[in-house]
Amino acid sequence: MKIDYSLYLVTDRKSIGERTLAEAVEQALLGGCSMVQLREKECSALDFYRQALCVKRITEKYQVPLILNDRADIALAVGADGVHIGQSDLPARAVRRLIGENRILGVSVSSLKQAQQAVRDGADYLGVGAMFPTKSKADAERVSLEELARIRRMSDLPIVVIGGINRENAGLFRSMGIDGLAVISAVLGQPDIRKAAVRMREAVKS
Amino acid sequence: MKIDYSLYLVTDRKSIGERTLAEAVEQALLGGCSMVQLREKECSALDFYRQALCVKRITEKYQVPLILNDRADIALAVGADGVHIGQSDLPARAVRRLIGENRILGVSVSSLKQAQQAVRDGADYLGVGAMFPTKSKADAERVSLEELARIRRMSDLPIVVIGGINRENAGLFRSMGIDGLAVISAVLGQPDIRKAAVRMREAVKS
Repeated sequence: MKIDYSLYLVTDRKSIGERTLAEAVEQALLGGCSMVQLREKECSALDFYRQALCVKRITEKYQVPLILNDRADIALAVGADGVHIGQSDLPARAVRRLIGENRILGVSVSSLKQAQQAVRDGADYLGVGAMFPTKSKADAERVSLEELARIRRMSDLPIVVIGGINRENAGLFRSMGIDGLAVISAVLGQPDIRKAAVRMREAVKS
Repeated sequence: MKIDYSLYLVTDRKSIGERTLAEAVEQALLGGCSMVQLREKECSALDFYRQALCVKRITEKYQVPLILNDRADIALAVGADGVHIGQSDLPARAVRRLIGENRILGVSVSSLKQAQQAVRDGADYLGVGAMFPTKSKADAERVSLEELARIRRMSDLPIVVIGGINRENAGLFRSMGIDGLAVISAVLGQPDIRKAAVRMREAVKS
């Protein structure tokens, strides 16, 4: 499976209203999202496992990678393509040992120092943010464009920026050599998810 | 390692006051607790991992098994002896596949039906409760002594009862062929944890 980080969907059940998560993810993939991270902080492990099984049927249909937030055990149990961890999750090295070399390991960082550590720990890609204020994660630490540029210079790993990314600011990151834009509400929070994804994709390209 | 379920300590950081979890667990083991389940629902994965590493040094010193609640990935990362899951966690079969045959798998049940399922799914022991009202888990479903007796007759697996177990009611379970008593506040919530464990052990024997 080729990994295309360009339009990286992060799920948030609070954004999707009456739609099921599987329906919302399918619309986002039809609109051009290239990758899915399932992030559900406020549900039981059983619920997360069941949601992951549902969403995996969709990501397999569209041949895009499915990454699970935090829970390496659930990622292994459902056969997800990878795990994404933050600075308060299991250490990256421990997760790498659990998931092996063939699954994708993503690490959230908000500083050059954290990025350097993630590179040493064997991350496959870096999630850098929050770039802008965001409702999805109100307490997220902000990252300046200068710090992002320093992280970009430091490593050749794919970088996905996250936090308040939308059509208006998407263009900023292209010239900086950023590999992907993570979107939550800019896609899932819109009345027409598919159209919102198509428009985000156009904004990425233009 | 011989598995002695008789006085099964379940941790709860809210109970231990100013003491560190490692200190509290050591006092409980000095007093005769035979097994430890680390249960910390309200902390980050990183914090749970670090607590598990600390407590593991104590359980290894006293040669008693360390079981982690819910998180099979953290159990594997720290090399714990087993995982304990509830009805809202990953399915038992999935956890068994993750942890293999050599680690201990415990399953919480509150009915004969759940117990039968846990046996089919490959549990090594059953945690049955809540037997009595308990502050540690206010929303726990109650199990009658009649249902406990039915579960006892159904399976030869070790059974640990949990929920409001203390010195006064400990005697009840011995005649029923119950293998162990799980204690939280009856030990950890006492000013002298070691003495409380010694007294619980006396109550189990008498």
